[in-house]
Amino acid sequence: MRSSFVTLTALILVAWTLLAQQDARPGLAGFSGDNSRAEQEWEQRFRSAISPDNIGDYAKLLSARPHHVGSAYDKHDEEWLASKFKEWGWDVHVESFQILFPTPKERVLEMVEPVRFVAKLQEPPIPEDPSSNQQAEQLPSYNAYSIDGDVTAPLVYVNYGIPDDYEELERMGVSVKGAIVIARYGASWRGIKPKVAFEHGAVGCLIYSDPRDDGYTAGDVYPKGPWRPAEGVQRGSVVDMALYPGDPLTPGVGATSDAKRLKLEDVKVFTKIPVQPVSYADAQPLLAALAGPVAPARWRGGLPITYHVGPGPAKVHLKLKFNWDMKQINDVIARIPGASEADEWVIRGNHFDAWVNGAQDPVSGISAEMEEARTLGELSKAGWKPKRTIIYCAWDAEEPGLIGSTEWVETHADELRAHAVAYINTDSHSRGYLNVEGSHSLETFINQVAREVTDPEKNISVWQRRQLRRIADANSGEERERLRSRTTWPIQALGSGSDYTAFLDFAGVASLDLNYSGETDGGVYHSVYDDFYWFTHFSDVGFVYGRALAQTAGTAVLRLADADLLPFNFTDLFSTVRDYVNELQRLAENQSDQIRERNRQISEGVFSATSDPQKPLVAPAMEAVPPHLNFASLQNALDALNHSADHYERVYIKAAQDGGATLGRASLAQVNLELLQSERALTDANGLLWRPWFKHQLYAPGFYTGYGVKTVPAVREAIEQKQWSTAEQSINTVSKVLENEAAVIEKAAISLEQAIR
Amino acid sequence: MRSSFVTLTALILVAWTLLAQQDARPGLAGFSGDNSRAEQEWEQRFRSAISPDNIGDYAKLLSARPHHVGSAYDKHDEEWLASKFKEWGWDVHVESFQILFPTPKERVLEMVEPVRFVAKLQEPPIPEDPSSNQQAEQLPSYNAYSIDGDVTAPLVYVNYGIPDDYEELERMGVSVKGAIVIARYGASWRGIKPKVAFEHGAVGCLIYSDPRDDGYTAGDVYPKGPWRPAEGVQRGSVVDMALYPGDPLTPGVGATSDAKRLKLEDVKVFTKIPVQPVSYADAQPLLAALAGPVAPARWRGGLPITYHVGPGPAKVHLKLKFNWDMKQINDVIARIPGASEADEWVIRGNHFDAWVNGAQDPVSGISAEMEEARTLGELSKAGWKPKRTIIYCAWDAEEPGLIGSTEWVETHADELRAHAVAYINTDSHSRGYLNVEGSHSLETFINQVAREVTDPEKNISVWQRRQLRRIADANSGEERERLRSRTTWPIQALGSGSDYTAFLDFAGVASLDLNYSGETDGGVYHSVYDDFYWFTHFSDVGFVYGRALAQTAGTAVLRLADADLLPFNFTDLFSTVRDYVNELQRLAENQSDQIRERNRQISEGVFSATSDPQKPLVAPAMEAVPPHLNFASLQNALDALNHSADHYERVYIKAAQDGGATLGRASLAQVNLELLQSERALTDANGLLWRPWFKHQLYAPGFYTGYGVKTVPAVREAIEQKQWSTAEQSINTVSKVLENEAAVIEKAAISLEQAIR
Repeated sequence: MRSSFVTLTALILVAWTLLAQQDARPGLAGFSGDNSRAEQEWEQRFRSAISPDNIGDYAKLLSARPHHVGSAYDKHDEEWLASKFKEWGWDVHVESFQILFPTPKERVLEMVEPVRFVAKLQEPPIPEDPSSNQQAEQLPSYNAYSIDGDVTAPLVYVNYGIPDDYEELERMGVSVKGAIVIARYGASWRGIKPKVAFEHGAVGCLIYSDPRDDGYTAGDVYPKGPWRPAEGVQRGSVVDMALYPGDPLTPGVGATSDAKRLKLEDVKVFTKIPVQPVSYADAQPLLAALAGPVAPARWRGGLPITYHVGPGPAKVHLKLKFNWDMKQINDVIARIPGASEADEWVIRGNHFDAWVNGAQDPVSGISAEMEEARTLGELSKAGWKPKRTIIYCAWDAEEPGLIGSTEWVETHADELRAHAVAYINTDSHSRGYLNVEGSHSLETFINQVAREVTDPEKNISVWQRRQLRRIADANSGEERERLRSRTTWPIQALGSGSDYTAFLDFAGVASLDLNYSGETDGGVYHSVYDDFYWFTHFSDVGFVYGRALAQTAGTAVLRLADADLLPFNFTDLFSTVRDYVNELQRLAENQSDQIRERNRQISEGVFSATSDPQKPLVAPAMEAVPPHLNFASLQNALDALNHSADHYERVYIKAAQDGGATLGRASLAQVNLELLQSERALTDANGLLWRPWFKHQLYAPGFYTGYGVKTVPAVREAIEQKQWSTAEQSINTVSKVLENEAAVIEKAAISLEQAIR
Repeated sequence: MRSSFVTLTALILVAWTLLAQQDARPGLAGFSGDNSRAEQEWEQRFRSAISPDNIGDYAKLLSARPHHVGSAYDKHDEEWLASKFKEWGWDVHVESFQILFPTPKERVLEMVEPVRFVAKLQEPPIPEDPSSNQQAEQLPSYNAYSIDGDVTAPLVYVNYGIPDDYEELERMGVSVKGAIVIARYGASWRGIKPKVAFEHGAVGCLIYSDPRDDGYTAGDVYPKGPWRPAEGVQRGSVVDMALYPGDPLTPGVGATSDAKRLKLEDVKVFTKIPVQPVSYADAQPLLAALAGPVAPARWRGGLPITYHVGPGPAKVHLKLKFNWDMKQINDVIARIPGASEADEWVIRGNHFDAWVNGAQDPVSGISAEMEEARTLGELSKAGWKPKRTIIYCAWDAEEPGLIGSTEWVETHADELRAHAVAYINTDSHSRGYLNVEGSHSLETFINQVAREVTDPEKNISVWQRRQLRRIADANSGEERERLRSRTTWPIQALGSGSDYTAFLDFAGVASLDLNYSGETDGGVYHSVYDDFYWFTHFSDVGFVYGRALAQTAGTAVLRLADADLLPFNFTDLFSTVRDYVNELQRLAENQSDQIRERNRQISEGVFSATSDPQKPLVAPAMEAVPPHLNFASLQNALDALNHSADHYERVYIKAAQDGGATLGRASLAQVNLELLQSERALTDANGLLWRPWFKHQLYAPGFYTGYGVKTVPAVREAIEQKQWSTAEQSINTVSKVLENEAAVIEKAAISLEQAIR
């Protein structure tokens, strides 16, 4: 087998060289010769017409007032968006859902011992900033889907409040049982913090923004600079999105008015303890009043105090009550019907609801999307007819839990599974580099799109700028050489945190999330200061990265909608999955090695010898060394995937070799139908163990990271959580899914072979 | 050659196995059977008699008042030390030198723009601390050997002020030309900061203690905890010790009253710009007033401000005037004459002068040394007679520049080169782990000593505790396995920072520096708060690590003084030097690779593509790729060293195989004389290029690190400073020195062979 493998590899290398050269040719991947030229003209016209001034105008209007879920200005924005789509020639409708959206009724946070201190929990207006004083319309600082509660308990500082931090607390001999924890924002999605705190016995949770992370240590604070001022607070949802996103009352189904709803007491995704976000001005007196061990070096933030862990003597009273109200939310859905393949849908979306004014989050993104919509409308008037149906979505209620998009996807799940080609998401952006996360079958495709867009600061392509950044950031010479040898850069896997989640993880729709960032950063996220004044002083001031974003997402939409052959690439998918499987094997081995080594150190006396009697550490306990896992079925599935991906690629290259002329002669309808199912094949209808809503078997947000992705989640999390038999079982599930995927690709390869014969 | 090499290696392995087993036997390395038993009894008796209470009593008395060079209480301490040696039966004399010791006459530090602020430059008394109010006797905070100066200039923050920091400033486009720099303490010896600042054009230098490094971020501040309070200041010398330590007026010769002295204007080791240390209370307003780029993340300290780099708008006025006075300093030198080999000297020392009260630095060390002296006196009275002469030294004037020890070594250089076996140094200590730095020919020896001393907190040997700490801290499984497979742990090479410097680097005396630390730390170093109250609340409270230190150093002295055969080991030396040479080759290769890679990135456009237009960075310039260096002569010298070290070791093992009986029958005088010269052979009379005072060719403090060692300094620093022809030249110098060393060892091997025949 070895020699034939070598031959195959050599063949692929030759083929890739041809493809790489092809990048420089006029032809576009997936287009026949004639269509390729036409497409390039339309795309060029599209990108030229995108206007930063328009984006700035939309942004100013959409962010003029607070527009959280259920607010008057949220309704205003929705109506304006719908009217604009209509004005620009789109077929538009508003789709509404009834969802649970709690808002604060009472918020009390005070220290009762050893000194009394009452937290302000207020973000003051800033004179220079004209919208920061719209206090009557602002939602107070709170964490949505915290339960009601009234607790008084000693305080414990838990760093970022992730599982590793609790392991370190345990070694320090500090328990949070019966305590209120104070965690800083960062290192995990915020909803993870109260979840892990509760698992360790805490009765309440405060989350504060440390100045080292996004306040004065990071840079000048607002309004002098973009960073968080002393009283700025990060609002945000703490619903357990790792179980399911969307309306807490209607998991898995659309929250239509007639939907069957859970009773409040049956909902599993609320926090188990009350949670309140606080500013560093409010946090400092609490932290300064802690005694107990000095916090480990990595735990120390930027406040001018010695960080202690506690518990106590600081004792804190936290009382929270919420209005547990139902709200109507309204998604704006706009279409341009496909001319020939109307049943194949290319979907594009960004949310429009904000926590307060949200000039960056999400107005920077929805404004770019609207400029795409205006320009596509213009192209339509000029005679452009997309082959496929294009659906532009403006989502409501993303902030509380990706609700607008999730309810829509759940409502239309069957149609999406039948018709969706891909979903392209954006959200906030600032200045800098193109970041892409998404389905790896679209990796080559989005790399090609990125070569078409010019970076507004550097006058090179955004592809090139990102590539050079990667070279600059590479950790080793090897990594740099690998980057330099490739004509595409790798894209990252999707976790969660924006509206692609239901598309990818629930419906199995190939998805991409795009943004520009990496230069401007700041500390106004989810505060009253994320507004037009802040954005136009510190972020994408001239909306030129808004233009780049619209050009990138819009070009992707155009190309997917117009392509003769859908531009999926499965060799990217295969090599990514192969890397994941290698990682999993290393993870299992490392875990065994670590347990073995720790056991050995315990018997050698390392822990007792190195524990300072004045700062004693609890020695860890001996642990059973895990069994070896059987990865054979995964390896076999990988071989099958490799085989069919290679097969498809060889046929594809053959089809593309004459500049796409072969493609032009073929009927590709059957192939496209099969390709469209390729991402669906990566899902399992039963979903992940413990959280069946998540169907995708390659990507999911981590159960203990919240936003951060866990690839091959069923296997990876079982290993991480030392559940060995679950890991074995999950290896088999994933293997089957990969075998199915290989079969779908093989079928597409055969169909394509027949089509171009 | 390969097969004979393998045989040799196998032989050595067998031999080492025997030696390793021998560790468990009653015999001591270097002792004949009978003497071994007697020695063990004396050593046991010595260690049992060491009293922590005595150490505490000495410490209380010696640190009762400020005792800097030339002060009344420095004289008091000297006289008390001499009287005690006498009382305990030692032959004692005081050896005096006349040295230059500047003290402050005028100190002004003020900000004149954009707001006026006058620095206090005062350390206030603390009510709980009874000696902190001895202000009439305290030296004010200053940096000794700063020049007089009166400058007013914009301020620039330069992080730690090491060469890398200036490279980063250059990329930010910030120049310190004509500016006053403010650097934080840490990452280099303090004297390096004004030196590098001057090289870059600065006209003044402030050095402050950032709370992140040793203030509130590190832990609770004094008097609540051991860390630096807001107004605490680190005094210290800034003389250019990397050129030569000791009295600035008498480089290379003893500062006796009749010595030839440099004129002040000819002295090269003063700073070139005025320098003043400041507290973080005084530094904060200055740093807060800086604008310009935000400091890179790694540069940000613990003050509650955004760290900017400048220059300005903060403009600072610094005016310093000093009394450039001569002072008499007085070293206390005490002897127990050797019974049979009086011309072989085992030397032990610790300084007694302090910046202020100095309970930790140096009283913790000198008190342990005095308890050794008392106990050795007791053994003498009980009939113990050391074979060799033991010399105990209490050094004056270490703080301004290792002056007491350096002048004594320079005065007695010829005698030392003829007679010195080894020098054992201590200085400050606290709680924790035994740390050893020193000559690698003593590595196995000091490991054996460390097995005899019990850790006061853990009741295991201090050898074992350090070994387990190393296992805990190892970065890789490989490193851990290497540690576990050895019966000795490696010792680190000596740089500078205490009184071993002249012994090792000028006179070529094999040296060891010992301390216990790693648990208690703090921020009172060189401040008025390093006093008895602080030490007995936060450091080695019960003086039990003082006991361990006296037991360790004293056992080493006893064993060196009594051994039949001096316990040098050259296979340790060889393997260490081999590692150094490998490091140097890698260093040269990495430097080439880095330059080549950077040149490539410049042509690819990496730097222009990744420079944020709002925080522009200057792209580095193309640089010539360095030539390949010829390491052949070093490799050949290494082979010779390997050969003679192996030869000596084989003969030694043969001599020790019968439990040392062979050794007892032999006359070892000639071998010992040759062994005693082995460290001298590692020196070159011409010294290092640019700094001929430093004779040792394996170890030196770095020209740009100050304390931190540079091994094989002539070669390493030439490569680091990209002086390729100097590097080639130095490779040859070092090769010759290693060939000489190999010859000395070979001669000793032959002599030993003859002695035991």
